[in-house]
Amino acid sequence: MDMKIGVVGLGIMGKPIAANLIKADYAITVFNRTAVKAKAFVDEIGGVMASTPAEAAKASDVVITMVADSPDVEEVILGPAGVAASEKKGLTVIDMSTISPGVTKRISKRLQEAGMEMLDAPVSGGEKGAVEGTMTIFVGGREQVFKRCLPVFEAIGKTITYMGESGAGQLTKLCNQIICSHNLFSICEGLVFASKAGLDVQKLISALSGGSAQSWMLSTQAPKILDRDFRPGFFVKHEQKDLRLVLEAAREIGVSLPGTSLIHQLYNSLETEEGGATRAHISLVRAVEKLAGHEVGK
Amino acid sequence: MDMKIGVVGLGIMGKPIAANLIKADYAITVFNRTAVKAKAFVDEIGGVMASTPAEAAKASDVVITMVADSPDVEEVILGPAGVAASEKKGLTVIDMSTISPGVTKRISKRLQEAGMEMLDAPVSGGEKGAVEGTMTIFVGGREQVFKRCLPVFEAIGKTITYMGESGAGQLTKLCNQIICSHNLFSICEGLVFASKAGLDVQKLISALSGGSAQSWMLSTQAPKILDRDFRPGFFVKHEQKDLRLVLEAAREIGVSLPGTSLIHQLYNSLETEEGGATRAHISLVRAVEKLAGHEVGK
Repeated sequence: MDMKIGVVGLGIMGKPIAANLIKADYAITVFNRTAVKAKAFVDEIGGVMASTPAEAAKASDVVITMVADSPDVEEVILGPAGVAASEKKGLTVIDMSTISPGVTKRISKRLQEAGMEMLDAPVSGGEKGAVEGTMTIFVGGREQVFKRCLPVFEAIGKTITYMGESGAGQLTKLCNQIICSHNLFSICEGLVFASKAGLDVQKLISALSGGSAQSWMLSTQAPKILDRDFRPGFFVKHEQKDLRLVLEAAREIGVSLPGTSLIHQLYNSLETEEGGATRAHISLVRAVEKLAGHEVGK
Repeated sequence: MDMKIGVVGLGIMGKPIAANLIKADYAITVFNRTAVKAKAFVDEIGGVMASTPAEAAKASDVVITMVADSPDVEEVILGPAGVAASEKKGLTVIDMSTISPGVTKRISKRLQEAGMEMLDAPVSGGEKGAVEGTMTIFVGGREQVFKRCLPVFEAIGKTITYMGESGAGQLTKLCNQIICSHNLFSICEGLVFASKAGLDVQKLISALSGGSAQSWMLSTQAPKILDRDFRPGFFVKHEQKDLRLVLEAAREIGVSLPGTSLIHQLYNSLETEEGGATRAHISLVRAVEKLAGHEVGK
């Protein structure tokens, strides 16, 4: 592959994405705020280390950013040592973070004024999807730019959908988070009800999986809840960040989401507990358990 | 087959159930409150007509009841001309209606005292499942009685799970309704958000179906919402009855279900509209649409 790629942000998601790009023979330059992580990556897996996002951009045709929230993306792209400071005409920035659709559009506009392109390409599928290269990717931005970058997406994801103009990828990801959080909440209320009523929860999960209650959440996450396996794949604090983005966007576009708002409030009860923010998002069940004074399976 | 079966209640669900039993060569006696429907069934499909549930019981080894709500089941089983009035020792009653687990246990006890058996066996899968004989069936009651009746269940359903003692079938069905109503609500909030944000909703549904938002509701009901296909398969008033049963049972067992309660409240807005009670349950989307002042796909 002759396309050179920079990867900014080597966290839970960014690291396996960069590794899969190396596996697909792309020449990679990496930047991470905590430099020791970038050093470890280069030593163990490969690529070249950059000391700023701008430096990573100078060495690349495409820069992927995968950081936590809207301000982080603004900093690594528009900050003093950010990607835009490279002044590299023709550069394409692919932001795979989940951030505000409004902020995305603003950054994209700024980059276009500087002769650069931007795609918003948030993902679903968690760490497992990133490691296995099976992420679901929702892309917004100019379609022509999307087509040019498709081989990059195919090296790291499986279901890749072009959703429309700048911000459309982020909006789609927010819809994904609305539906996922509800589907998880459905299991939390269902399992706590079943368990306190004295039903065999294991049997219940399999009885329900064949019918209209079937979902990815039921088949993959309900067994984890039953096993009390709250090891983080996706943090409570990240779920909360996403739901905050959903509710902010809902306010902007004039939509009222009472269900999503309720789920966000219930997560507050967990996020403020000691160690709660970094438990898995499926620990939402603990909020329903608190209300019932009963733990599933007990 | 030498087991004779009575079917009490020839509504949307009872009629195809009786028809599938005839197809499986069972001798059938039918009763329906509106006698003309029973007459039409016997003329068109087969079986013998009874003028009371007691009469249907006298002619049968097993009586299936499929009526609307707890008081209806009490009437056709314990009422003056009900199944119990047949005084038929050894009779098994299979109640496939969705009713209160508490009422179920009380009726079951009364029948046992009269030398009869009862299974609670509510179903999931709607009219389509009943017609095609692919219903999901959740069974409570004595296991030995369940085993004896298994061939009957296999003639009308596909996924059949024995869940435990009397009432366990109803409790499982209520869990199913909790999860289904949330999963449907997730789609309502997701689609209204997406549509008002200007996304291509058709594309969105397919983009989300490959990932963690996947569910039976998303793949089968979201396209119907997009097509504004609110022809009843399952009425709003029946969904409301089921959610009322859920919330009553939750109160009895000491569980708090803020999400299910919210969904129940939103349905109030539809149930009280002219014609709203007999629209399809997926018209829940209209409640979210009212709040947003926007119709999906417009």
